[in-house]
Amino acid sequence: MKRSSYDRGRRSFLKGVGAAGLAAMAGPTLAASDEGVEWDQTYDVVIVGSGFSGLAAAIEAKRNGANSVAIIEKMPVFGGNSAINGGLYAAPQTPLQKEEGVTDSPDTMVSDQLKAGRGIADEALLRHVAAHAREGLELCLDVGAKFHPYLQQLGGHSVPRTYQTTVSCGAGITQPLYKECKKLGVILVNRAKLKHFIRASNGQVEGIAIETRYYYDRDVAEGPQKQIRATKGLIMATGGFSQNVRLRMAQDPTLTADVGSTNAAGATGEGLLQMLKLGAIPVHMAHIQSGPWASPDEGGFGYVSNYSIFNFPHSIAIERKSGKRFMNEIADRKTRADAELANRDDQGNPDPALMITSYKHAAKHPNAKKVLKYGVGWKFDSLEELAKNYQIPFKALKAQVDEYNGYVENGKDEQFGKSMTKAKGKYLEPPFMVVRLWPKVHYCQGGVMINQDAQVLDSETGEPIMGLYAAGEVTGGVHGVSRLGSCSIPECIVMGMTASRHIMAKG
Amino acid sequence: MKRSSYDRGRRSFLKGVGAAGLAAMAGPTLAASDEGVEWDQTYDVVIVGSGFSGLAAAIEAKRNGANSVAIIEKMPVFGGNSAINGGLYAAPQTPLQKEEGVTDSPDTMVSDQLKAGRGIADEALLRHVAAHAREGLELCLDVGAKFHPYLQQLGGHSVPRTYQTTVSCGAGITQPLYKECKKLGVILVNRAKLKHFIRASNGQVEGIAIETRYYYDRDVAEGPQKQIRATKGLIMATGGFSQNVRLRMAQDPTLTADVGSTNAAGATGEGLLQMLKLGAIPVHMAHIQSGPWASPDEGGFGYVSNYSIFNFPHSIAIERKSGKRFMNEIADRKTRADAELANRDDQGNPDPALMITSYKHAAKHPNAKKVLKYGVGWKFDSLEELAKNYQIPFKALKAQVDEYNGYVENGKDEQFGKSMTKAKGKYLEPPFMVVRLWPKVHYCQGGVMINQDAQVLDSETGEPIMGLYAAGEVTGGVHGVSRLGSCSIPECIVMGMTASRHIMAKG
Repeated sequence: MKRSSYDRGRRSFLKGVGAAGLAAMAGPTLAASDEGVEWDQTYDVVIVGSGFSGLAAAIEAKRNGANSVAIIEKMPVFGGNSAINGGLYAAPQTPLQKEEGVTDSPDTMVSDQLKAGRGIADEALLRHVAAHAREGLELCLDVGAKFHPYLQQLGGHSVPRTYQTTVSCGAGITQPLYKECKKLGVILVNRAKLKHFIRASNGQVEGIAIETRYYYDRDVAEGPQKQIRATKGLIMATGGFSQNVRLRMAQDPTLTADVGSTNAAGATGEGLLQMLKLGAIPVHMAHIQSGPWASPDEGGFGYVSNYSIFNFPHSIAIERKSGKRFMNEIADRKTRADAELANRDDQGNPDPALMITSYKHAAKHPNAKKVLKYGVGWKFDSLEELAKNYQIPFKALKAQVDEYNGYVENGKDEQFGKSMTKAKGKYLEPPFMVVRLWPKVHYCQGGVMINQDAQVLDSETGEPIMGLYAAGEVTGGVHGVSRLGSCSIPECIVMGMTASRHIMAKG
Repeated sequence: MKRSSYDRGRRSFLKGVGAAGLAAMAGPTLAASDEGVEWDQTYDVVIVGSGFSGLAAAIEAKRNGANSVAIIEKMPVFGGNSAINGGLYAAPQTPLQKEEGVTDSPDTMVSDQLKAGRGIADEALLRHVAAHAREGLELCLDVGAKFHPYLQQLGGHSVPRTYQTTVSCGAGITQPLYKECKKLGVILVNRAKLKHFIRASNGQVEGIAIETRYYYDRDVAEGPQKQIRATKGLIMATGGFSQNVRLRMAQDPTLTADVGSTNAAGATGEGLLQMLKLGAIPVHMAHIQSGPWASPDEGGFGYVSNYSIFNFPHSIAIERKSGKRFMNEIADRKTRADAELANRDDQGNPDPALMITSYKHAAKHPNAKKVLKYGVGWKFDSLEELAKNYQIPFKALKAQVDEYNGYVENGKDEQFGKSMTKAKGKYLEPPFMVVRLWPKVHYCQGGVMINQDAQVLDSETGEPIMGLYAAGEVTGGVHGVSRLGSCSIPECIVMGMTASRHIMAKG
């Protein structure tokens, strides 16, 4: 592991076998003439994946002087899983924090994230993202993304620092980014699936082979295979693997096909697997996050997730059997998901916890009406009625609500140490709204190792694989054991921008 | 991810580029004529690595009819990291359990392991190993390994089920296995380093390219490169990566070069990395275990580790500052390592915990004399003297010792729920022996995913990579978050045997 044995290996190897044998090798000594590849298309920068990272990278490449930029997307639509995420963006020292009088800094944000990461997060990468998070937000605003005029304080964050799109969805960012890409002349190719990388004899990644007219549902490519060259750089922005049941079960056998996922169907991780074949370093792939705000009463991310995220600060989550709280409702995701999964009946079957919110506060979230309309949340005029409906011991529940309202009064949660900043004045009062809570597979902390220039590192040398960049969920190490909510979009945007800046700075 | 697109990819690809270009590809479509490789040597079975797994696999291959078996070892000596491990072997329903009247079963052993694995261990693999563990022990006995005539109860095990070699070291097993290999005519090649795999055009692994006359210290190969063919099967038994600081820091940035490791220098994981390049599935690589029985007063595994493992059941571990116990001394490794790492002074610097044992019991371990001789453990005639030496509050320490002796009396630990079976009658009495405790990097739970036939699985198809097997620490998934002590040797021996049986059963 002390040095690359590339050159020596290549020389002695060539003595041993003929040209045909050469091709039989996998690994770093793989080598061939650069001239043999017939390129179908050539661009300065080629990006695989069209979520936050890919779109931000394309814009930044163009703004930094790239003549030609192409985005390759395997699905029929652009936007990836980003388009259906919660549209939550954490950044320190923003205009809204100034307006709301919140004191914050990149250091504070990093410190919150390191705590959730349980000591194994990549601090340097977190610092890089936090330092540029506001700049990433400015890119979103600049291309026309619209945000609610208030901040939220999400689980594990020590202060309110989270913006959310007015549509409460990532599409509120991906669509403006997409339009900007079109305006700047970025080539966007859909139904185009990465097959593998193409490397030069010196090991540099020169481009990719893709399948065209690819139909995801049938897993069939009807068009010809093409070789796409990236003269300045190739950026992998292919996302996570939450929807790859085999790969996620390899890490955690409990995440079977029966367990829901909030992710778009295309989040299956082929880009990650191809990079591992190239010698990228797998990091933290065993850490897969489940969203503690999901509902067992609807598919995917649904309507409840964003509704819960918004309402957790001024709601209580209670165990149905006892009528008592069992967690800090804004602890980090892993803490909450683990606590929720412990809600089971005597046979060990799920007995989902209930989130109780005052209707007048719950109704302020744009999804509240849909939650009621589609029968994934319920309204009750009194606590008695609520308790009867779910067979909760009424006395215990009443005592819990009274106790909690005391915490609202005093600004201090004596049970679980929840920050009561966002609960100020928001007593639990009838009528109530209730949703049920059960975690769903949401995010892969793991992926390939990158440096602060978004370059993918080689497992044998620790040095960058020349020509290859990665950004967003396909990378690993940034978050560690648990990722804080609203920290993915800033990471994606910032690291996408970072990759293009590094590529274009090299000239 | 739904199917392999190997054939289709290959066909459409061949239309696009010439033969030279073909070689520029990395990934599953890599393909070439089998005839181009000039093989230097050909064996039925080729094994990379000469630890427990590799040696057991070689013997089992020979015993099942292989005509020619070769072991390839990069280091100058055979035995790998196995030769310096603790020589502890857990198995249920053994002769010693019968002698000692211990009721046990493969189910019980699996249940203990699943608990330590925190829900993410591969239960089917654990069951396979537990069901064959006694058989693996019989192989060791059959080739002449010598064990102490008593069982130990290690952390996390619900009953005593652990044999230990009389030399308290893995060499007590690797040396007899090695001799048996020689006797059976296994070819053993040292200073031979794997460079990469060689695959046939159908994707099957046919052999390896190796560097010969390899000098590990200088990382130089002075001999020619050779191509070694495995006609029936190739078994990767290359161990963990505890000594690869870059790779372990990628998973956990706190495991810097300054942190000690108990492992042999060669445990650097190149075999694992080569398999990932071939498309093997990385599993649980983020879970790296530190040994809670190591001493900060000596390098590597040292003399203290085995001494502590033996003595933990009838000793107390105390926090120096308070003089109080802080953990169940035979909890699983992760629980204990995390608890020990919390022992710090006000500046956050390590303030290692102390393990206190009655001298008369401690002295029964063969390492006790060396621990004293080399100044990595100390003897005290009274508790006062001991407390004074380490500046422990005497009253608190005295109270703790008295309390603990009550638990010995009653057979029940009221503080931490430690099983007192092995502590029966062993009161803490002067003179005392003391060693200090600080965890060292010990074992990588992560590695490549295999099935119950020890076949390495492909990340794109989930099917076996034909011709490729792996066994032992280089594989992942078996143990999960924390591996129980003495469960590695049975895994290595059983999975090595399993690989060879599957290879030879195919004929």
